[in-house]
Amino acid sequence: MDEVKVIEIKKSVFESNEKDADNLRKELKDKGIFLLNLMSSPGSGKTTTLIRTINLLKDKLRIAVMEADIDSDVDAIKIKDATGIQSIQLHTGGMCHLDAEMTRQGLDALELEGVDLAILENVGNLICPAEFDTGNSKNAMILSVPEGEDKPLKYPLMFSICDVVLINKMDVMPYFDFNLEKCTEYVHMRNPKAKVIPICAKTGEGVDKFAQWLLDEIENWK
Amino acid sequence: MDEVKVIEIKKSVFESNEKDADNLRKELKDKGIFLLNLMSSPGSGKTTTLIRTINLLKDKLRIAVMEADIDSDVDAIKIKDATGIQSIQLHTGGMCHLDAEMTRQGLDALELEGVDLAILENVGNLICPAEFDTGNSKNAMILSVPEGEDKPLKYPLMFSICDVVLINKMDVMPYFDFNLEKCTEYVHMRNPKAKVIPICAKTGEGVDKFAQWLLDEIENWK
Repeated sequence: MDEVKVIEIKKSVFESNEKDADNLRKELKDKGIFLLNLMSSPGSGKTTTLIRTINLLKDKLRIAVMEADIDSDVDAIKIKDATGIQSIQLHTGGMCHLDAEMTRQGLDALELEGVDLAILENVGNLICPAEFDTGNSKNAMILSVPEGEDKPLKYPLMFSICDVVLINKMDVMPYFDFNLEKCTEYVHMRNPKAKVIPICAKTGEGVDKFAQWLLDEIENWK
Repeated sequence: MDEVKVIEIKKSVFESNEKDADNLRKELKDKGIFLLNLMSSPGSGKTTTLIRTINLLKDKLRIAVMEADIDSDVDAIKIKDATGIQSIQLHTGGMCHLDAEMTRQGLDALELEGVDLAILENVGNLICPAEFDTGNSKNAMILSVPEGEDKPLKYPLMFSICDVVLINKMDVMPYFDFNLEKCTEYVHMRNPKAKVIPICAKTGEGVDKFAQWLLDEIENWK
């Protein structure tokens, strides 16, 4: 396994995250870098989904990934080994989310020359990351079948801020009580505009639809 | 479905949660109430596990449950309907954890006369709840098979503070890459004293071992 760069993220000192996030978004726009913020519970399949997505897009876009975790560097290594793209690990030092300034610390550690798409895999948490704008262009989240269809009822903010919701682990649907139609209805209760895409990151099923969504969003954003 | 009491929890104003938690622990000890704090990711099976456990113990102990969630009251209703015991819903108003003072607000809303065991089902989150002592007697957590065996590497604090770790959804083990031996090893890396109990809340398998663990802990604590 390859070694990866590990960045110890410092707590932000900025007073207004909203303002800082807007500044970062503007800077990235000027540089032509689309920033995707990917969120989910622990173990929903963020890293596996990213590997599939990157392998579908890496010939069309230059991509760089920041993997945030409290500890360990297993995810950044997995991404680097499976896709060959630039991947770094951000250690949050126990913090439960990333804000714009913390995201900037990650971006500063990347080689951004020529990069079209930067992806932030946020800390595994359905609550706090939803409260902090990272300066991203779009928010994506993954809800996996084993977690249950009722999550949009219990974690309203997360679902209300996401532009796309991937329903992962569709392959194990027969072993769980999960009603996809009801789940989609709950997501749209929180955010009528959210796009819902069922996928199976393990087999790759449906990931092409997410990759196409991403390409379309980048095209519209330009 | 029954109606349940829903408590809107206010943010704590106390400066020292540690001190407040110790005070609450002492007060509960004086009243003979053992407080169990149950934590996990969203969708790991906290409520289903509690229903099974309560139904095994309700003839031996008088039990009351507080179900914390950002929104919805589905869990408190589920507990009340399935066990008949006293169950209330705590709304955290977007907050990602409960501390001792917030737990006290929940306890104040319960009828505690004669109660031996109070259970707090904390907010679904592997990070923030681990940072705040709720004044509990013991900490329990659930890691479910679909989340993956590597979680103790990524969420060190949660695993280091838990007295018992339940590995749930053992019935779906054949459909996931999950090595129970390796997971147990990772848990013990974080906390050599943690008891690891594999269970399946859906079928009830192994829940008797958790119920017995709880009875033994209450006996030792008296």
